Formats: sequence, C-alpha cells, structure tokens
Amino acid sequence: VGSTSIRDRYARVRSHSEALAAPLSAEDQTVQSMPDVSPTKWHRAHVTWFFETFVLAGRPWYQVFDPAFGYLFNSYYEAVGPRHPRPARGLVTRPGVAEVAAYRSHVDDAMSRLLEDELEETMRCLVELGMHHEQQHQELLLMDIKHVFSCNSLLPMYAPAAPHPRPGAAGSSTGWSGSEGGVMEIGHEGDGFCFDNESPRHSVLLAPFEIARGVVTNGDWLAFVADGGYRRAELWLSDGWYAVNGEGWEAPLYWRGDDSGRWSEFTLSGLQPLDPDRPVSHVSYYEADAFARWAGTRLPTEAEWETAAADGDLNQAFGEVWQWTASAYLPYPGFRAAPGAVGEYNGKFMVNQHVLRGSSCLTPEGHERVTYRNFFPPSARWACSGVRLARDPA
Amino acid sequence: VGSTSIRDRYARVRSHSEALAAPLSAEDQTVQSMPDVSPTKWHRAHVTWFFETFVLAGRPWYQVFDPAFGYLFNSYYEAVGPRHPRPARGLVTRPGVAEVAAYRSHVDDAMSRLLEDELEETMRCLVELGMHHEQQHQELLLMDIKHVFSCNSLLPMYAPAAPHPRPGAAGSSTGWSGSEGGVMEIGHEGDGFCFDNESPRHSVLLAPFEIARGVVTNGDWLAFVADGGYRRAELWLSDGWYAVNGEGWEAPLYWRGDDSGRWSEFTLSGLQPLDPDRPVSHVSYYEADAFARWAGTRLPTEAEWETAAADGDLNQAFGEVWQWTASAYLPYPGFRAAPGAVGEYNGKFMVNQHVLRGSSCLTPEGHERVTYRNFFPPSARWACSGVRLARDPA
Amino acid sequence: VGSTSIRDRYARVRSHSEALAAPLSAEDQTVQSMPDVSPTKWHRAHVTWFFETFVLAGRPWYQVFDPAFGYLFNSYYEAVGPRHPRPARGLVTRPGVAEVAAYRSHVDDAMSRLLEDELEETMRCLVELGMHHEQQHQELLLMDIKHVFSCNSLLPMYAPAAPHPRPGAAGSSTGWSGSEGGVMEIGHEGDGFCFDNESPRHSVLLAPFEIARGVVTNGDWLAFVADGGYRRAELWLSDGWYAVNGEGWEAPLYWRGDDSGRWSEFTLSGLQPLDPDRPVSHVSYYEADAFARWAGTRLPTEAEWETAAADGDLNQAFGEVWQWTASAYLPYPGFRAAPGAVGEYNGKFMVNQHVLRGSSCLTPEGHERVTYRNFFPPSARWACSGVRLARDPA
Amino acid sequence: VGSTSIRDRYARVRSHSEALAAPLSAEDQTVQSMPDVSPTKWHRAHVTWFFETFVLAGRPWYQVFDPAFGYLFNSYYEAVGPRHPRPARGLVTRPGVAEVAAYRSHVDDAMSRLLEDELEETMRCLVELGMHHEQQHQELLLMDIKHVFSCNSLLPMYAPAAPHPRPGAAGSSTGWSGSEGGVMEIGHEGDGFCFDNESPRHSVLLAPFEIARGVVTNGDWLAFVADGGYRRAELWLSDGWYAVNGEGWEAPLYWRGDDSGRWSEFTLSGLQPLDPDRPVSHVSYYEADAFARWAGTRLPTEAEWETAAADGDLNQAFGEVWQWTASAYLPYPGFRAAPGAVGEYNGKFMVNQHVLRGSSCLTPEGHERVTYRNFFPPSARWACSGVRLARDPA
Repeated sequence: VGSTSIRDRYARVRSHSEALAAPLSAEDQTVQSMPDVSPTKWHRAHVTWFFETFVLAGRPWYQVFDPAFGYLFNSYYEAVGPRHPRPARGLVTRPGVAEVAAYRSHVDDAMSRLLEDELEETMRCLVELGMHHEQQHQELLLMDIKHVFSCNSLLPMYAPAAPHPRPGAAGSSTGWSGSEGGVMEIGHEGDGFCFDNESPRHSVLLAPFEIARGVVTNGDWLAFVADGGYRRAELWLSDGWYAVNGEGWEAPLYWRGDDSGRWSEFTLSGLQPLDPDRPVSHVSYYEADAFARWAGTRLPTEAEWETAAADGDLNQAFGEVWQWTASAYLPYPGFRAAPGAVGEYNGKFMVNQHVLRGSSCLTPEGHERVTYRNFFPPSARWACSGVRLARDPA
Repeated sequence: VGSTSIRDRYARVRSHSEALAAPLSAEDQTVQSMPDVSPTKWHRAHVTWFFETFVLAGRPWYQVFDPAFGYLFNSYYEAVGPRHPRPARGLVTRPGVAEVAAYRSHVDDAMSRLLEDELEETMRCLVELGMHHEQQHQELLLMDIKHVFSCNSLLPMYAPAAPHPRPGAAGSSTGWSGSEGGVMEIGHEGDGFCFDNESPRHSVLLAPFEIARGVVTNGDWLAFVADGGYRRAELWLSDGWYAVNGEGWEAPLYWRGDDSGRWSEFTLSGLQPLDPDRPVSHVSYYEADAFARWAGTRLPTEAEWETAAADGDLNQAFGEVWQWTASAYLPYPGFRAAPGAVGEYNGKFMVNQHVLRGSSCLTPEGHERVTYRNFFPPSARWACSGVRLARDPA
Repeated sequence: VGSTSIRDRYARVRSHSEALAAPLSAEDQTVQSMPDVSPTKWHRAHVTWFFETFVLAGRPWYQVFDPAFGYLFNSYYEAVGPRHPRPARGLVTRPGVAEVAAYRSHVDDAMSRLLEDELEETMRCLVELGMHHEQQHQELLLMDIKHVFSCNSLLPMYAPAAPHPRPGAAGSSTGWSGSEGGVMEIGHEGDGFCFDNESPRHSVLLAPFEIARGVVTNGDWLAFVADGGYRRAELWLSDGWYAVNGEGWEAPLYWRGDDSGRWSEFTLSGLQPLDPDRPVSHVSYYEADAFARWAGTRLPTEAEWETAAADGDLNQAFGEVWQWTASAYLPYPGFRAAPGAVGEYNGKFMVNQHVLRGSSCLTPEGHERVTYRNFFPPSARWACSGVRLARDPA
Repeated sequence: VGSTSIRDRYARVRSHSEALAAPLSAEDQTVQSMPDVSPTKWHRAHVTWFFETFVLAGRPWYQVFDPAFGYLFNSYYEAVGPRHPRPARGLVTRPGVAEVAAYRSHVDDAMSRLLEDELEETMRCLVELGMHHEQQHQELLLMDIKHVFSCNSLLPMYAPAAPHPRPGAAGSSTGWSGSEGGVMEIGHEGDGFCFDNESPRHSVLLAPFEIARGVVTNGDWLAFVADGGYRRAELWLSDGWYAVNGEGWEAPLYWRGDDSGRWSEFTLSGLQPLDPDRPVSHVSYYEADAFARWAGTRLPTEAEWETAAADGDLNQAFGEVWQWTASAYLPYPGFRAAPGAVGEYNGKFMVNQHVLRGSSCLTPEGHERVTYRNFFPPSARWACSGVRLARDPA
C-alpha cells in the first residue's frame, strides 16, 4: 500500500463498491429483507454521505448534492442529527440507482479535487476512516443481498462465480496448536490504520491453551446435526435454546434439506450441493458455542486467537469465514472513543455482542488485520460467520 | 360498451394498467410499505396471472410463461395452491419490471389469439371477470403507490396532474334528499357484468330517511378537528377510540400540519395546500362514524345509498371518493359464491368489513355501478374513502 | 317478577353473585388469564362500583367507600374518568377479597336504605339497569373462571355440579321450522326492562326461511372434525382461516384429545368425557360459519331467530348455549344511546362483532328475553357459544 | 456458621422464607406482573421442589407430595423435564397458599428426618446448594413483590419497616481507592460454599486503577437527571439509548415525580420522599454506564471490584445495592459446570448479561461473599441494583 497515493486508493475503494453493485438490478438494490439488512443503493449512498459529511461539508467550494440526503443516509450518528428509521430503509424508492450514481460521482469529483493536495493529519485520518468504512459496507452489501435473495423462492444468483468459503488445504483443518500462555500483548500498534476499538495495545494474562489450526467444516457440522445437536437442550446456552425453538433452527441459516435428506446450501451463486470440506458458515454464536460443547471443546477468547494468529499458528484465519470468539465485545482497558460524531463509530455498540476474528470470503482485499475486532449479536446468522475451536490442555 | 369487441376491451384495460405504471421507476414498482400494500409490479403480474390461471392454463397450445410465477403471483386463492406470503411481496426483486413486462406480453399474445374466436359462455365470463379484476387493481396500484411515496421524507410526486377528488359544483354538497322508504329493491339485475356480491337483487324494507346530496368536504372536517373531534371519546366507537389513541390519529391519513397550524395534503402530485372545498378523503370508517355523530347525523346504510343513487338524488356519487356506509359487509339473502377458485373472489371476505359505495377519482372509467359494493376494514385509511351523511327525518 | 319489590330483587341479584364466588379461593378470584377475562373479585367490585357511581354518588348521606376504587373498578366509561388498564386487572392484589366483600356490604347497606322509599323514574331505571348489569357479570364471572382454570395443567374444578349445556329432549335437535317471511316486527316492546340495543321495535322484511329446531351437538361437530373441517380452506371465511392457522385451532376451545383419539371436554366440573348429545359450545363465529357451510346450510339472521323464537318454534333457545347469528352487531334503525355515561353501555361496541341470541347454561335465571342481543367478536371462544342452523327453502 | 448443624441451618433458611411471605395475602402471593417476576407462592413452592427433586426423590421412604408439582414448579431445568411456561406462572391459582404451606411442611419433615444422619458428600453439597438457592429466591421474592405492588395505583406497603438502602457513613461515598494493578487472583478458594460460577480461582492481570470508596447516591443521580442525562444520546450505549426512548425512561425505575418537580421513591414501605443521601437503586446497566460516562469515569470490572473488596478498600460493598460492573457474565477460565441437572444452575446463562458484585439490602444475611457473581441483562431494573464508579489514574 505504502507507495500508492491516497487518491489512487480512494478511487480503487470507490470503484470496487460499484463493481460489487454492478450485477444488481435497480429492483435488487432497493429492497430490505429485515431490519439488519440495508438496500444496496442505501449502502452506496451512505458511504458517500460519510465522505460528504465528515470530509467535504463546510468547505467553501463544496456544494452539497442534496440537503435531504443527510436525513436519508445517516446511519446512526446521533451527533449529526435525526435520520430515516433503519427498518424503513427499504421504503425509499427515490432517489433511485441513477441518482445515487450521480451522488457518488459528485462526491468523487470533489474528493478527487481535495486529494490533489496534501491533507492535514485530522482530515487524512477521516479520509482513511471513510475508505475502511466503505470496505466494511462492501462486505455488508454482499451479506445483505444474499439475505434478500434467500427470501425469494426463485433463489436468484448474484453471480456465477461469487465468493464462497473454500476448503482448506489437505489436513489444514485438523490438529491443534499449543500455547504456554503467560503475559502477552494484544491490540494494534504502529502507524498503520486501525479502528479505535483495536486500541490501546495492552497486556493480557493467558493460561496455557490449545487452538485448532483449521476451522470447523460442513462435514463436521453434519455430524453435529446427525447427533441431534439442534434437539439437545444440554448443549445450549439458555438464550440459544430459546432461539433454536423460537426460530425453528435445524441447520445453518442457508442450508436447505430435501425430502431425501440431502443438504444444499444457498450461496451468492444460487443453490449448491453442500460441500463437506468447506468451512461451515452463517452460524450464530449460540450455534458455535453449542457445537464446541458438543465437541468437548470451547471457543477461543479473542486474546487467544490474536496471539496464535500473530504467531502464524492458524490456517484459514483470513478470507474464509469470520470466527466467533468466547469474548464479549467490550472496550479494551484504557479505550477512549474519538471526540465528535465519529466517536460513535464503534464504542456505543460495546454491549450485547460477541467478537469475531479473522475475515471472510466477502471481506475486501486489504481490509484484514490480526488485531481486527468484528462483532455481532449472538443470535446473528446473516454474516459469513464460522467456528474455530480451542481447548484447555489435558 | 355494447359494440366494442371483448378483444378491444381487453386490450384497452391492459394498456391502461401499463399507462398507470409508466411514471414509476423500477425501484418505485418494487416496494411494499405495509402488508395491505402491494408493489406495482406485483399488481401488473398478478392480474396477468389471473388470466393465465383461469383462462389460458390447460389449453394445449398455451405455454405457461414460468411455472414459478404461480407461487409468486397468486394473491389469496387457496384452491389454486400455496403462495408467497402477502407481507413479503416487497422482498421479491426478481422477476424485475422488464420480466414482468415480458410476462404481460406473453399472456396478451395468447389472450389475443384466444379472443379471435367466439368464447363459450363460462370462459367469456371469466375473461370479463379478469378485466374487472384488473380494473380493481388499477385503483389499488394508485392507492398503494401513494402510500409508498408517503413513507418517503422527500414526498415524491407520481405525476403533476394525478387524479385527486374535485370540489362539487357550487352548493352541491349542501342539502338533503328525502325518501319515504318502504319495500324497495337493491342489488344487480340485467345482463351487464357485476361481481357476485351484488346479487341476488332482493327486497329491503326501509324506514323514511334523508341523505345528503353532497359529500363531506375538507372544510367540514377542519371544523370537526377544530372542535376537538379527535380528542373527545364520546364521539367514537370503542374500537375507533382505541385506534385514535394507539395510532395517534389527529387528522385524515395524508394531512400534514405545519408549525403555524396550516394544513397541507399529500397527493399523487406531491404535497398541496389543503383545499377546503374538496371532498375529505382517506378517512377510516371509525372517523366517518365519529364525524357523523359529531354532526348530529349518521352514515347511510348501503340500501339507503343505493336507492337514492338509483333515483338520481345524489351528487358526487361517483368519481370523487368512496363513501362509507353503516352496513357491515355481509352476503345478500340468497347469495351463493361461484363454484371453484373464483368463488373465493368476494365471499370469503364477508366479515369484519364495512361497505363503501360509489367510486373514487382513482377508479378507472367504466368500472362504476350503482350496485357496486366495495369493502374495507373499519380501520383502513389508505383507500380514497370519504363520507356522505344521512339522518332520520325530524 | 311483578309482585316482588325492587329491594328484594336487588338483594337476590346481589346474593347470587356472592354465591357464585363462594367456591373460589382468594387466589382464584385474583387472576386474569387474558385481556378479555377479568378476575372474579374485579367483577364483584365493578358491579358494586356501578351502583355506587350511577345511583349513590352525590347523595348527601352517602359516604364513598374508597375514592381510589373509582379508578380501579371503572370498566370502560370514558365519561366517568380515567381507569386502570383492562389487561392489568389481574395485577391488583389489594384490595383483596375481604375488602371487596366489605365494599359490597357498604354499598348494599346504602342501597337497602335507598330502596326503602319509592324512587323517581330515572333512578329506578338505573337500579334496574344495575341489576341486569350485575347479572351479565354473573355469566362473565363463570366464563372467566373457566378460562382461568383451563390455563392450569391441574385442570381444577369450580364445583362438582356446575352448569353445563344439557342434551335436548329426544329428537329435539332435528328437524326444521319453516317461515313464509314477509314484513315482521322485531325488537323490544312493552314496559319490561330491556337494554337500549334491543330498541326501537321495528319492521324487517324477511324472505322465506327454515331454521333448525335444535342446536348443533358435539356429535355433529365430531363429524365436522373427522371430515377435515379444520383443514379445508374452502369452508372458511378468510379471517377465520387465518385464525385457524395462527391459533392452531383443531376443535372447540375446551376439547382435549388424547393419544387414542378420544375427546374430553374441560368443564366447570373438570375434565369430562365428551358427550355427543350435548350442544357444542365454546366455538367462535368463524367456526360456526364454517360448520354451517360444511353442512350445506347457513347461520340464521337475528331477525329470523327472533321471529321464530317469538313463535315458539325453537327448542333449546334458552339456557343451553348462545347461538351465533349471521348478523353483524349494528344499531337498530332509529337507535339512540342514552344520554350521559350509561349511554356507553352498548352503543359504542357496535362494530366488529356478531350478534348471538338466546342464552346459555351460565346465564342467570330471569335474564333471558326473546329480544336479547348478546355480541362478541367473531374470533371469541370463551363465551358459552354454540350454533343453530338455518337454510333457504328448496 | 461452623458450629451450627446443617439441620439447624436448613430450618433457619426455610423459616426465613416463611417470615418474608408472612405479610403477604393469598392474593399478593399469586400474581406475576411481568415475565421476569414470579409469584411469592411459586417461589415458596419452587425452592421446596428443589429439595424434593434433587435430594429426596428416589429415596424409598419418601412419598412425593404431588407428582403434578414437578411440572408446575420446575424453573428451568431441561434435564428434569417439561415445565409450566414461565410467563404463565401467575395464572396458577391452585395450589393455593395453604397447599403450598402443606407442601413445604411435607418436605421439611422429610428433610428433617434426612438430616438427622450424616449425609454423604454429594448429598450434603446438594442440601447446601438448596439452601443457598432458597436464599437467592428470598431476595427475588422481595424484588418481585415490590414490582407487583408498583403496578397497583394504590401503591401498597409490604411492611412499614421493610429493607431499603441506607445512607453511608458521613463521607463514605466520597474518595477513591487506588490500586497498582499487576497479576492478582480472583475467584473462590477454600472449603466454604460457593456457586460453580465463582470458580476456579485464577490469575488476572490488572492495569492500575482507582475505584470509588462509596456508591453513587440519589443526590448524585438527581444531578445527572437535571443535566439532561436521560436526553443526551452521546452518553449512552446504542442499545441503552434505544431502551431510554422505547421505554420512556426518565429516572430510576421506582422514582415518581410530582407536578412540582419533587421526587418520591416507591419502596417496600410505600411511597417515600427521595432521600439524596441513600444509594441510588433500581437502575439498569445502561443507566449505570451512561452515568459513569457523564461523570467522566467508568464502571469497574469485576476483577477490580473483587480485588479492592478483598483488600477492604470499599465502603457499602455489601447490604445496600448490587453494583453493576463493566464485565460481561462469562465463564472463568477453566470453568466447568457440574454434571447433571444442577449443572444448569449457572452456566447456561453466561451470555447477554453483566455481572453485579456485592449484595443488597434485600439479600439475606450470610448470603454474601467477596467472590459472589450476580448477573442480570443490561436492561434489567427490578433488582436492587446501583452503581460504584472506577477510573484510570491520571
């Protein structure tokens, strides 16, 4: 990345979003299938609004594209003002995709002009944040459209060769890596970009542990299902058992069984036969935790994951499936949110969620870090979330 | 109508639907703003499915366009099979508007071929029913897109000169027409088309009554609002009072008040200053009933309405606003639903609704009859529904 | 009734309420099992509040028992003031049964003093209304405690010989009574008491009809169940079909099937083997309507019922099960609610309900009239409601 | 405790429950005001069921009191079998309080016989667990009846001198205690009783911290309210802000404001003027967290709390209000739930909750420990929960 100018990187991030939206019709880009999901065109507009609001607004030469967009495309920044209710994002038919494209061009032109000159540090950081923010929404865009399509009985295809978790190298998913534990460091350090929730770097005390080299596969999960995993209360957290029964869970979110007991998996390339060698994905924390208990193991803490990953002990750490950890999403000791509206980016979500580590096949290239802390509520299944096991040494 | 061939009439009805959808983008046509509302493209496809299913299906020369559409575009015909859940109609992004247009063309071609020859009576009746069915959906299409747009803070415009209730002729909304009552006939007779719920024609016994020549205006309604109409429990049915408080009703559905107490009205042509001379519209049965009580009057029964309208005693009976009646929507004595799936058309909805009479500015030309029975639940406000008063002679 | 003084009748009505509550413990009298149900002690206090508020309050010599009771025991009289929310009636543990008994005594003493002297007409009418009101709550008390007990897996018994619908005389439930129809009178006339909704007496025009002499039995209903009655959409109103599926209805409310397919019925005397000769009870309007359709018949209108009953053509008209009619609960032509708070007694409920005629085994003696109009929402099943069929002559 | 026999201690715990229930009428003991709350008589029966099921059942000489009670009074032990739904505990009127008292006597007699002899270790542990379990329900009983009474507009009193948080000694609530941090031990050790979630004792690494000597008072909280604490989004976690707006929170759960802006507090002794020197209580984790942010501080972790408490650095640690910590309720490293049904006691709730430390004025004597881990969801307010602050050294 080093030698690439921020202007080039900006252009690259922005055009990647457009490439991701390209296979989607105007209709596809408009719909919201549940409150957690946002329409594609909302994602495209919201990440643009981020640059307009935090970087461009207030510059004398910048003309706001449409003042009404501030209300429509603010996600959750209370400090910026009121906003369109989240569950109603799918009701906004206008602006349409063409106008959203015009909005993007308008902001891109202004950003391009801005980035011709050296920026002062604060501004440069906000542009950097905006690019990483857009990358997060690139993953959300794919997660969300997958969910939208899954609600359509025709099970449409996003693209014939869309991203999907790949099998590990032979044997990669077996075996354990051991650690002696002790006082170790986690959290981000150095000059590179990180989100505020990755800092400050700090010491933690770990007991000896073992962590699986690979992630849990569909084949492993089939054994769990066959063994009554979704019908045995003793394997589940109480809230998880409530979800199993209330939601009727019998398998990961996108598995579909046929009458003869064969499983398929709905993917961005449509319905596919379930491949037992691929990582299991789209499971909740509750399911990950129950699976680990069934297997006589447990989930790793985020500190265990990070120290093992930093040591290079993990296969499939990145680019396949996010890996649930046993750690609740809480501030690191000494954490301090940034002042102002961007301080709402991460800190205010630090309750009722669990941390996931690594990255997934939907994560854009260059967006992964060993210190990265992703987070979702324990019931969430629409992220590309899987499982890596850990255990205490015998 | 007489001399126009059914083939021409079919073509005219079908192209009118397309004309109504023409101002709407692909995004506009996809969204569902509440369970009662259907997306424009769903309306366009569903009315097509009706012809395909009830008229074309099973003919050896007819090739079903896409077998999956039966599931997606069946509305409520249990006898035809399972169907996509109504509240999830807005989640179907594919087929898109282009494919829906192709579906329409495919069916239109087949219908055109079919209608070249004389049809046997049963089939001719089904084609006739299908055309009237499509006309009903033309009104629904406009009601529904109005609701969709009303959920968008930008308050978009369907068309600059979209239909909207017009003021009556000077003095038309004042005065009463009296009737001596007695045994009178209501219900459809003769050879013309009617829905099954308009028959059989039968005798009713009416007490003497007076019915208003015109309909209630926005100006009348402003007086009701100003007199605390929405805050006085004694004016309301118990279920109505519950709705007022639960839903926070303070005015008709599309009225918008500004800080200075001026009212505007959201219309298919965008936000407009409230015109006191136009008929009030988008009020529920509960509101209509409360208004009548406040005015020291009552709502007419459907028999009172029909006999007065048949005598030509009513102004603004048609083409402005549907008029709530005091009559629950129940079968006429001797009513018998048609056998088979089309028997589900009307009969199974005969509970928990009230009858509206007349027609509205959204009703397509030629779709109105003095015996027509429209119906909605008493809480419904998204139809173009207004109020005509009645009273007992002094 | 004629020669009994109002004072004696008052005492008799009041003591009957206490007799009905006598088998119930303090715990039994406190609980509310759904919003429609009220606790026994609430019934006992509310009917007392009615006399206190509408008859005693304001008399210089009368000391209000506890001013806070006005809030707790007002049911739905908006004109009287705010009140405890209906769904929370079961949260009020104090006043307890002993204090409610003291409240009743206090009001009875005052009423007894008041009734020593001749009352002026308006007051006499209110006392009369209060007594009929208390009788209505006597039936509700039994309906409600039956529902409360049905939520307890121990299925407790109210009393070993509690009221329950009895089989008709041999042959009583078969055969039809025919009527020529014509202009006939319905509604209350004469000096006796009636509720305002039974008036004014007025003419109706009836087509010829036939009405069943007896009511539908459990045995009849077993045949409906066995014939897939609860699984065949074509038999049901749309809202009814929604209820069947949403609520999982497979039989009347209190039927309980065992593994071997034998049915029992939960009664106020506990669980009893289902007796095929007794009237079916605790069915909703939706079920009654579906049963009638299945049987190739229909429900009678309330005018058909009343004219046939007035002619003495009906067996089991009173004292077994209320009989659903096809008539929506609407005001009679010329109906006018009483002025003031008691005008809220009936009129404001005239929407979204259907009329039931006759009376049930839970109705107190002397509370039945051929013009009596009971009413419940079409989904209600906790009343002792059954079915009488009608049909059009061949 | 040492020299007191387990038989005596059993008798003392059991009679304390009865003493707590003594001021409550049969009606009071029957009602459930929300799903989290259980009726008093349910508590009395459930703790009895615990001894019957885990200690007495299966002994040849023990006669089960009523086999149906297993279904009614199992709380959440999946391994023991199906059970009455939690939100419907308030619908069970029978068994009544007298039968529950008989149940308690029956089990007490059997336990008394059992405890005459030396028990084997496993059984002794289960009896010990049962006693601590009953003590937990003693606190729940008081929390729950307070909530029940708070739903009654009469605001009844449990007892004139009921437990309520007391002001600290002069100056006790001011000042900070500092810690150098480092590797420290937390968790239970030794022979005394502890719940499984307090073990194993293990090392943690703490950064230097300061922790408040006293707890936050009503006076402190009044300043927070006056400063717009409940109206400033920037102070709140996102889920907390949602709760504030969705639930309409403006003050702690039992504060009641009058028209002149004076605050009272509903207590087990009825409504009392708010005492600014007493600890604030009945606040959620969300409120505690927002208060800490407003004060420029943070909540302590449970390890910070425990190490400071073990060092004797905290005033008001026990007997006033539970103190929310920043720690999610998660298993300690190496935690292992007990085998069998009692393994469900704690472990399965380790998600979506936060830890509270200390004890409250409602906690029975002898039930407190420096290692005790109480836990509630972050939105819960009906526990006697307050706030102790912490901060990072300057």
